[in-house]
Amino acid sequence: MIAVIKKGTSDKQIENLASWLKAQGLDVHLSKGSTHTIVGLVGDTSKIDEELLESLEIVESVKRISEPFKSANRKFHPDDSVIEVGNTSVGGDIFAFIAGPCSVESEEQVMEIAKAVKAAGATMLRGGAFKPRTSPYDFQGLKADGIELLLKAKKETGLPIVTEIMNANHLPLFEDVDVIQVGARNMQNFELLKELGKTKKAILLKRGLANTLKELLMSAEYIMAGGNENVILCERGIRTFETYTRNTLDLSAIPLIHELSHLPIIVDPSHATGASRLVKPMALAAAAGGADGLMIEVHNDPQHALCDGAQSLTPDAFADVCSSVKKVLEVI
Amino acid sequence: MIAVIKKGTSDKQIENLASWLKAQGLDVHLSKGSTHTIVGLVGDTSKIDEELLESLEIVESVKRISEPFKSANRKFHPDDSVIEVGNTSVGGDIFAFIAGPCSVESEEQVMEIAKAVKAAGATMLRGGAFKPRTSPYDFQGLKADGIELLLKAKKETGLPIVTEIMNANHLPLFEDVDVIQVGARNMQNFELLKELGKTKKAILLKRGLANTLKELLMSAEYIMAGGNENVILCERGIRTFETYTRNTLDLSAIPLIHELSHLPIIVDPSHATGASRLVKPMALAAAAGGADGLMIEVHNDPQHALCDGAQSLTPDAFADVCSSVKKVLEVI
Amino acid sequence: MIAVIKKGTSDKQIENLASWLKAQGLDVHLSKGSTHTIVGLVGDTSKIDEELLESLEIVESVKRISEPFKSANRKFHPDDSVIEVGNTSVGGDIFAFIAGPCSVESEEQVMEIAKAVKAAGATMLRGGAFKPRTSPYDFQGLKADGIELLLKAKKETGLPIVTEIMNANHLPLFEDVDVIQVGARNMQNFELLKELGKTKKAILLKRGLANTLKELLMSAEYIMAGGNENVILCERGIRTFETYTRNTLDLSAIPLIHELSHLPIIVDPSHATGASRLVKPMALAAAAGGADGLMIEVHNDPQHALCDGAQSLTPDAFADVCSSVKKVLEVI
Amino acid sequence: MIAVIKKGTSDKQIENLASWLKAQGLDVHLSKGSTHTIVGLVGDTSKIDEELLESLEIVESVKRISEPFKSANRKFHPDDSVIEVGNTSVGGDIFAFIAGPCSVESEEQVMEIAKAVKAAGATMLRGGAFKPRTSPYDFQGLKADGIELLLKAKKETGLPIVTEIMNANHLPLFEDVDVIQVGARNMQNFELLKELGKTKKAILLKRGLANTLKELLMSAEYIMAGGNENVILCERGIRTFETYTRNTLDLSAIPLIHELSHLPIIVDPSHATGASRLVKPMALAAAAGGADGLMIEVHNDPQHALCDGAQSLTPDAFADVCSSVKKVLEVI
Repeated sequence: MIAVIKKGTSDKQIENLASWLKAQGLDVHLSKGSTHTIVGLVGDTSKIDEELLESLEIVESVKRISEPFKSANRKFHPDDSVIEVGNTSVGGDIFAFIAGPCSVESEEQVMEIAKAVKAAGATMLRGGAFKPRTSPYDFQGLKADGIELLLKAKKETGLPIVTEIMNANHLPLFEDVDVIQVGARNMQNFELLKELGKTKKAILLKRGLANTLKELLMSAEYIMAGGNENVILCERGIRTFETYTRNTLDLSAIPLIHELSHLPIIVDPSHATGASRLVKPMALAAAAGGADGLMIEVHNDPQHALCDGAQSLTPDAFADVCSSVKKVLEVI
Repeated sequence: MIAVIKKGTSDKQIENLASWLKAQGLDVHLSKGSTHTIVGLVGDTSKIDEELLESLEIVESVKRISEPFKSANRKFHPDDSVIEVGNTSVGGDIFAFIAGPCSVESEEQVMEIAKAVKAAGATMLRGGAFKPRTSPYDFQGLKADGIELLLKAKKETGLPIVTEIMNANHLPLFEDVDVIQVGARNMQNFELLKELGKTKKAILLKRGLANTLKELLMSAEYIMAGGNENVILCERGIRTFETYTRNTLDLSAIPLIHELSHLPIIVDPSHATGASRLVKPMALAAAAGGADGLMIEVHNDPQHALCDGAQSLTPDAFADVCSSVKKVLEVI
Repeated sequence: MIAVIKKGTSDKQIENLASWLKAQGLDVHLSKGSTHTIVGLVGDTSKIDEELLESLEIVESVKRISEPFKSANRKFHPDDSVIEVGNTSVGGDIFAFIAGPCSVESEEQVMEIAKAVKAAGATMLRGGAFKPRTSPYDFQGLKADGIELLLKAKKETGLPIVTEIMNANHLPLFEDVDVIQVGARNMQNFELLKELGKTKKAILLKRGLANTLKELLMSAEYIMAGGNENVILCERGIRTFETYTRNTLDLSAIPLIHELSHLPIIVDPSHATGASRLVKPMALAAAAGGADGLMIEVHNDPQHALCDGAQSLTPDAFADVCSSVKKVLEVI
Repeated sequence: MIAVIKKGTSDKQIENLASWLKAQGLDVHLSKGSTHTIVGLVGDTSKIDEELLESLEIVESVKRISEPFKSANRKFHPDDSVIEVGNTSVGGDIFAFIAGPCSVESEEQVMEIAKAVKAAGATMLRGGAFKPRTSPYDFQGLKADGIELLLKAKKETGLPIVTEIMNANHLPLFEDVDVIQVGARNMQNFELLKELGKTKKAILLKRGLANTLKELLMSAEYIMAGGNENVILCERGIRTFETYTRNTLDLSAIPLIHELSHLPIIVDPSHATGASRLVKPMALAAAAGGADGLMIEVHNDPQHALCDGAQSLTPDAFADVCSSVKKVLEVI
């Protein structure tokens, strides 16, 4: 970490700063140039509060040289992490196909979709039991009952299940859930992340709507710092000014995360685009770009069928995506 | 609410849609034009899931005419809400000056600042006890001890206190806190909002980094739908591509919120800009633009003093802001 | 186009509006609902100024049903456009590999790179002669001399050339240029677009840093409305809050543009990411997502070689990208 | 300027880099730390291409300490610039009220509005003759005739006039125009900026939709580097995800520009918000925040009057804004 000191700062002020930094266990190197003095900090700078340092009146600017994340950092863990999930895994050689309905609605629905996505090539079943909704008047999910239905589908099909948590107090309900999802709106719900860090569950951490990749890795760090290294990252689109898509899918996140971290990263093209007709091309692009898996919404419920289709893919369309993605995976 | 139906949709499909909508308690008006059919929905459309409707294959697009928020909506509550807070209030004729340190660090610190900001014109004391930090390795606040210190300062100065909550399980600690703050990163932590809706506490709800004003009002709606109407909104900057400021303060939020809602809105220029030298001009701008109050960081702690200043204002600079803001308030 | 009229508007005001709209050659359909009146407009609404209409005090909101672009619209031109460029083309079955240096610097440099990229699989040579630079003190390109050097390389290798124009007055210099590029910063330089519309040259139109896909298509429309239908669109990243990449590459632009328009769309992963190590994965992703071609920076100049590499790819790395992309193209 | 060199770079590579930088006239200071080597550059670093330097494979990152703008930089020109415009000026003690119609439509219209805004307190008349429109099918302005009408209004009222240029070839038409406006979409039309730098006209340079303040100042630098120091900056909103307003007005631009530059900055609340009811609060906020003036749309034309109002203010509403702003200016 480097701090550039403002012109005209007195030696005494610089010494004060250096003493304070040394007291925090860092080696401090002063480099006085003709125009500016630069303070180089060596040691565990992840404990230094960058914003506080930058806010000091004598500091012109601060630049981190080493990244502030440690457990998630590829530098200290060069091999790809492979997260075990039931009879399968995420990361390494296995490509994850996670599919299922947006919301669990009934036993019939979830059972039918589970079988259909398994036949189509899914390696895991996803489904929402607790649903984060912008409006308090929108359907909030079947909650505990929804998890029960997912577990029945798991028993029937053998597919590990992925479902979202919104409250650490609900953790007992997730005992038999294979992957616990943290949604975009909770990516910086640090209290929830800390509680998940105390478990050994695989955690699927979605990038927030306006969060940088560094912040995504820092949120993974919250979980890992608690002792749980089973983190799967998920790119699901960020918020921009473009209005034709719900969000802007940032696929450059894939090679960047692979460079910065050893954690696997999957892509959710359904939520990112908000349009079923864009799911296949973005799924292929994600696979070609090096993603470790995909999470795709697949439906089969009467409410949607009533009007002949919807945002989610049908099981047949999902099967087509799986086989096309596999062809791409073979050649890269 | 209006749904525009795609060209080439059969009458039977439209009837199916109309039946489904009627079953949800709405009046449905069909208007067949030469190119498109339009479905007009009258009734309590706040219960309609706009995204689901838009995702149907026969629907080209959906447009809300009435807003999806009810309790927060000025249409149903034309008068400004005035939120009582201890011996003062927010909204209506009183302009709130909320000031204090970013983090509560020691009894000496909080007591000294509390007295200083009171003398300078503050109507409430703010201070962080639970601190949401991007990094798990950064200081997370004094927690319960921090709240104790704030309560001591309240007793000493009479100033009502504002402090942030990050976990609904901590609510018992907030019993004597006057205003509970929900931070930007928790604006869509719906589980937390629901719990706060069950209390009668004044809630200071900060806008999320990438959240629209509609989403801010929907989050207020979560609290109000639970029975707690004491919500104060806070504009604190949104995330954009500009890098000279930490965030981009969106002051047009003030007249827009006043138009859409009866809830008061205050502005936090300290967090929005991240630079003490920008706090005064943005505080004056917020006051001139019609804000109901300001929340400003003021420090007096040795760690900052060590280096002769910091991002927060000194008590003297805060006193200058207060008197300048009051002059502006007198003329508008 | 639909205009929703505000509650409480008098019949006379609505009649005035209807008369004004009819006077502009449109059929006007009034639909009075229990809460709102809706005005439906049928005819050539591309002539209607949406912003003006929306700004009228009696209008609550306006919604376009048909797109405001005509010449670029796939509805009126269902087949993919194939743009002829010298001995090759862009769009349809041919995948374009456009490669070359950021700036043309010397005859030796451009000749060497041209031969290298041709050998590696390039179908066109790109190179900057007029360089738009944020700073007036940065290198602005070799200008006319740069174009001369590109033409020499074209003669030597047979590769058609692509180079950027910044001023319509320079058009005579571009007489033998095969594809004229309009850079992101000039995407809404409407005066330049109009002049290019009077030529028959192939135009490579890059998306602006903060422009929507609708605006990109409207800028294509400016060129096409003048009579030049040879437009190739280019996605090159948009500006967001993410800082690890220079811009955020929006690959969902590919299937969206293909849906909305018959024009081909290529992708520039070099400028979008600003990092050579991200070029290959993003090139593969673009190809898998359905792009009609790629534009990639390739260098071989001493200034870069001096320091062992740079943002651009080496010819060898570019050859590797070409062969990998071709494998992906075979399977999709 | 500081360049941080990557770990593992050989001494020879660093020497090569140092030689190359010295050859560009800079003093180079190497500082080898235990983990990283830092290259400090002293001299006229505005000539160094930051992007090129950052793209070198051995360079981890680059940090500018001094700003890349010189003529616009307050460091080299501590006093506020005052731009003379006809019988008035912008910057310093005079607050500019620039008002007029979006488009010049007829002699009657422009004359009537000119007299009305003068009576209300305007110090300059604005009006669009050349109109940049997203669609080629929208009204493009009266062009040369529009400028003629503005000049008539100037003669009649004595108000200096402000109008937009879109093409340097039109400069002869602007001979008697007092202030030439460069619109947001042309902020980085560098060819146009260079031509304006050769004149002595006052230039009103609007911030682009997705441009940083540094880029705005670099565009001012283009004009000033040509010898024309008469630049007035204008904040008019940037593009974000918020949809209630057309753009997000970034008022923190005011104190930041005043800190970084000696050039005056005015604010355009009409275009920023796109809603007449937001103009007054944002005008007051801009004045309180330290703006040097305002540019406000005022109309009086039958097309708008037909429907009882529009986005622009009426002359009466503008008079109210002027008197309220003056009250705010008196107290700050």
